[in-house]
Amino acid sequence: MIVRNLKDAAGTSRCVTSPSSESIRLLLAEDGMGFTFNVTTLKPGVEVQMCYQHHLEAVYCMTGRGSIEDEATGTVHAIEAGTLYALNKHDAHVLRSDSALELVCIFNPALVGTETRDASGGYPLIKNPIQQD
Amino acid sequence: MIVRNLKDAAGTSRCVTSPSSESIRLLLAEDGMGFTFNVTTLKPGVEVQMCYQHHLEAVYCMTGRGSIEDEATGTVHAIEAGTLYALNKHDAHVLRSDSALELVCIFNPALVGTETRDASGGYPLIKNPIQQD
Repeated sequence: MIVRNLKDAAGTSRCVTSPSSESIRLLLAEDGMGFTFNVTTLKPGVEVQMCYQHHLEAVYCMTGRGSIEDEATGTVHAIEAGTLYALNKHDAHVLRSDSALELVCIFNPALVGTETRDASGGYPLIKNPIQQD
Repeated sequence: MIVRNLKDAAGTSRCVTSPSSESIRLLLAEDGMGFTFNVTTLKPGVEVQMCYQHHLEAVYCMTGRGSIEDEATGTVHAIEAGTLYALNKHDAHVLRSDSALELVCIFNPALVGTETRDASGGYPLIKNPIQQD
């Protein structure tokens, strides 16, 4: 059994910051769960263009308000507490925050933790070097 | 892209209630994400003994206070907002709520949605009848 807390992860390597966000990686590939569990806070007034070509991602909004634009159709969906979106087709999208957005983000396959966003707005696929049982 | 909201799921087949909890299944096997995403509210003062022999589960506490007991060791871990526990060894456990617990629950493999808890406190493994692309 693994037990972790958001506050213990602050300031450790689990906490990845960018100018627009802070992401705490509570579960990574090395944990052998088959998915990554991140808690990500997006600052207010941010616009991020993303496309995860190698991963499926589901995002659940715990607090805040914003929107997601499906770039293939131009459709904009409102995001508020209780909204989930799932990028089941590796959908190119733009995420916008009106207020700070506190999000749960699940990636499949799991991230190893060293990925950095590439030019396409996604993460490369990195094989987990740690043997899972 | 799939977009769903907790409030739209209330009163539908996505919402599964028991005497001790309400669970809203925002993603199921049919969605092809490889995991299930549930938002579960456990009532205050509840004690639930569980063991998922066929699934891995991660649980994140959004609000509330309670505890989880690892039955193998007897260790009790406090649960509060920001706590995640992951049953990476199909761990037998007892979940207790002091106040209402609002939880995100991720299952791998994904649930099809018709599972009911068996005598061991877990779910049977049901193959997804829907072809995924």
